[in-house]
Amino acid sequence: MTTMGEGETVTHSIPKGFRLSGVHCGIKNRPEKRDLVLIVGDADLCAAGVFTTSRVCAAPVQTSRRRVPSDRIRGVIVNSGNANACTGPGGLEDAAAMGRLLSAKLGVADERVLVCSTGVIGRRLPMAKIAAGVEAAWPMLGNDPAAATAAAEGILTTDTCTKTSERVIELPGGPARLLGFAKGAAMIGPNMATMLAFLVTDAVADPELLDRSLRAAVDESFHCISVEGHQSTNDTVLLLASGASGSSAATDEAKFAAAVADVCKDLARAIATDAEGATHLVTIDVVGCRSNADARKIARTVADSALFKTAVFGNDPNWGRIVSAAGYAGVEFVPENLSVFLNGVKVYDRGGPAEFDKPALAAKMKSQRDTLVLLRFDLGGGQCRFWTCDLGYEYVRINAEYTT
Amino acid sequence: MTTMGEGETVTHSIPKGFRLSGVHCGIKNRPEKRDLVLIVGDADLCAAGVFTTSRVCAAPVQTSRRRVPSDRIRGVIVNSGNANACTGPGGLEDAAAMGRLLSAKLGVADERVLVCSTGVIGRRLPMAKIAAGVEAAWPMLGNDPAAATAAAEGILTTDTCTKTSERVIELPGGPARLLGFAKGAAMIGPNMATMLAFLVTDAVADPELLDRSLRAAVDESFHCISVEGHQSTNDTVLLLASGASGSSAATDEAKFAAAVADVCKDLARAIATDAEGATHLVTIDVVGCRSNADARKIARTVADSALFKTAVFGNDPNWGRIVSAAGYAGVEFVPENLSVFLNGVKVYDRGGPAEFDKPALAAKMKSQRDTLVLLRFDLGGGQCRFWTCDLGYEYVRINAEYTT
Repeated sequence: MTTMGEGETVTHSIPKGFRLSGVHCGIKNRPEKRDLVLIVGDADLCAAGVFTTSRVCAAPVQTSRRRVPSDRIRGVIVNSGNANACTGPGGLEDAAAMGRLLSAKLGVADERVLVCSTGVIGRRLPMAKIAAGVEAAWPMLGNDPAAATAAAEGILTTDTCTKTSERVIELPGGPARLLGFAKGAAMIGPNMATMLAFLVTDAVADPELLDRSLRAAVDESFHCISVEGHQSTNDTVLLLASGASGSSAATDEAKFAAAVADVCKDLARAIATDAEGATHLVTIDVVGCRSNADARKIARTVADSALFKTAVFGNDPNWGRIVSAAGYAGVEFVPENLSVFLNGVKVYDRGGPAEFDKPALAAKMKSQRDTLVLLRFDLGGGQCRFWTCDLGYEYVRINAEYTT
Repeated sequence: MTTMGEGETVTHSIPKGFRLSGVHCGIKNRPEKRDLVLIVGDADLCAAGVFTTSRVCAAPVQTSRRRVPSDRIRGVIVNSGNANACTGPGGLEDAAAMGRLLSAKLGVADERVLVCSTGVIGRRLPMAKIAAGVEAAWPMLGNDPAAATAAAEGILTTDTCTKTSERVIELPGGPARLLGFAKGAAMIGPNMATMLAFLVTDAVADPELLDRSLRAAVDESFHCISVEGHQSTNDTVLLLASGASGSSAATDEAKFAAAVADVCKDLARAIATDAEGATHLVTIDVVGCRSNADARKIARTVADSALFKTAVFGNDPNWGRIVSAAGYAGVEFVPENLSVFLNGVKVYDRGGPAEFDKPALAAKMKSQRDTLVLLRFDLGGGQCRFWTCDLGYEYVRINAEYTT
C-alpha cells in the first residue's frame, strides 16, 4: 500500500544519500521470501528512534536504542523471521555481532550502525546465514525504486503486502524527499508481535529535530493503532536524514514534522488494515474531551474491547459495547456528556438510546470495509483518532491453530 | 456449580433470618426462565456492597450504592434479562419504582431496599411485568433449598448453570451459615456484561465489618477474573447479615472474612469456568513480585492478552506470549528476574528459553480443562492468583453472530 499526498504520484523514490537492499538469506524457510535488509548512508546520517517500552525488549532494541539520537549513524541492518527476543546474554552478543557485520563493511565503529529484528521469539539467530546475507546484500545496494521495494519486502513477516508511504516536502531551500516503509500485520503472527518502520529523508536535520518530529508523529500514529493491545518486544521506528538535498528542515520545522506525521499515519493505518483475519478497518474518533490524553484513553479502551470488535465483525451496531467500554476507560464523565455515531448515524444520544434504522445501519456496516466510530463528548477540546480492526474467526484460527 | 469445604455436604441451606424466591415474570422471552428474584430479611439486615466503577453505570447501581453500608436493609429485588443501563432519567425512575414494589410489600422506607438488574443495555424495564412478578414472587418466599435454587436461577442470563457456594463458619458463639450465589458467564452475552453476586449469612455482623470483609474478599476474587477485561455497567456484589444465628462475626473476624473470601473465590472461579465458548479455565499465579499490586498488574495483563488466550485455545505452550505480556504490564523488571511454568513444566528460565518436551506439554494442555500458568519472579514476596479462560471460535460466534 502506497499513499501519497493529493495529486502526487507513487514513485518509491529513495531520497538522495541512501542506498537500500533486501535479500533472502535463509532465516525464513520459504526461499522466495527476503529476510535481510540493509539501509546505508553515503555519508554520516542523523538519526532518531522510538522503541518498545516493554520490560521484555529484544536484544536488537537494547543494542540500538543506546545509539540514537546520533549525527554519525552510517547504516541499519534488519532481519525478519527471528526476533532475537528472550534469548539471554547470547542474544545480546548476536545483536552486537550482527551490527558488526555491517560496520565492518562500512569501516566504522560498532555504535554507528543500528540493528533491528522481527520474527519468532526465543530462538537464537542463525549467524552464519546472516553473515552470508550481508555478503549477498552488500553488492545489491541501490537507490532505485526496485531497491526500495526489496527493502520494504525484506522486513515483512506475516504481512500480506508491503507498506510504504512517501512525501515531497517543499522547504524554503527546495524540495526534500521522505520515504517510509513498515511491517506489521499487527499481533496476528504466531510469536511475531512486532512493528518496524523506517523513514529516510534527504532533508538537512539535526538529531534533536528528528527526535522531536518522530516522537510527535509516533504519538499520533503508531501509538494510536491496536489489534489486541499486546505490545511487542521488538517495536522500533527509525527516522534517518542524509541532508543530501541541501534543504534544511529547520527552516520550516512544522512542515517537516507534519510530513513525518503524515507518513507515519499512512503506515499505521496500513498495519491496521493488513491485520490478518480482519474484515473491517475501524477508525475511532473521540472528540470533546477535557484533554487529548483523556480522549486517547477512551479511544484505546474501545479499540481494545474484544466485545466491541466481535460486534464489528458481526456488522452489529451494538452501541452498548462502545458506551460501556468508554465507561471503564478511567476518564471522569457522566453518560449525559456522550453521544455516539456509527458510520455517521447517531446511535446514542447524551445518556440514552437514539432512534435509528438498525437493519439499514447493519447493512451499511456489512457493505463497507471501513467502520467509523465517533464518540462526541461535551467536556472540552481534547481529541484522538485511533485505528483498530475487527475480531473474527480468522484471528482465532491464525493464532490458535499454529503450534510453536 | 456448588463448592464446599472439604468433607462438607452441599445443602443449599439458606441461613436463618432470610427468605428467597425466584419466578418468571416475562422479562425474558422464554417462559421457563426465571427472571425476578426477591431476597427478604425476617428483620433488619446489615448490608455492604461493592459496585462497578464504570462511569457508565446502570440506574440500579446508582440507586443501590447510596443505600449501603446500612444496618436497616430489609430486602433486595433483582431482575435478569434487562440491565436498565443507558436508559437516562426514565431508567432511574424505573429503578426507584422497582425498589418501591418491594418496600411497599415490606412496609418500609424506600432506602431500606436494594435494587439490581442484569441483561440487555439500552431498553426501558417492563414495569408492569415486574409489578406482576413481585406479586407472584412474594407468596413464594421461603427458607428451604428449593427457594435458594429458584433465586440462584432467577439471576442468570447466558449462564449455562447456577453458581452457588456455602460455608459453615465455626465462630466462638456457635456456627453461622454463609450462602452465596452469583451470575456471570463473563462478557459473552450480547449486550449482557454483568456479574451479580449475593452473599447471605446469619452471623451477627455490623455494616462496617461486612464492608471490610466484602472489599477484601472481592479484591482477591471477582477483581481477579477476566474474560476480556470489558467491565460492566451493572456489576454488583452484596453481603447481607441477619444475625439470626446469634453468633458474632466480630469474635473471630479473620475466620469470618476468610469464609467470605472463600465463597467469593468459588463463585469467581465458577464464572470464569462458565465463560461460554471457553474450553480451558486458566489459573494465572504470579509470585515473587515487589508487591501484590505489581503481581496483579502482571497477572491481569497476561489474562487480558488475546494472543495468550488463543494460544491456550490451540493447546500451544507459547511462553513468548506470556513473557511479552508481562513485559508491557507496567512493572519494572528485567527478563532475568522471571521464570515461567506451564502446567508445572518450566518453559522460560530467567531470561531465556527452558528445555522442555513441547509435544508432550501440548498434549497435556489438550487433555485437561485446567491450564496453570506460574510466573515466578525473584523480586520480593508480592503475589496474585487470577482466573481467565481461553479465546476460541465460540467466543467470536456468540458475540458476533447475534445481532441486537
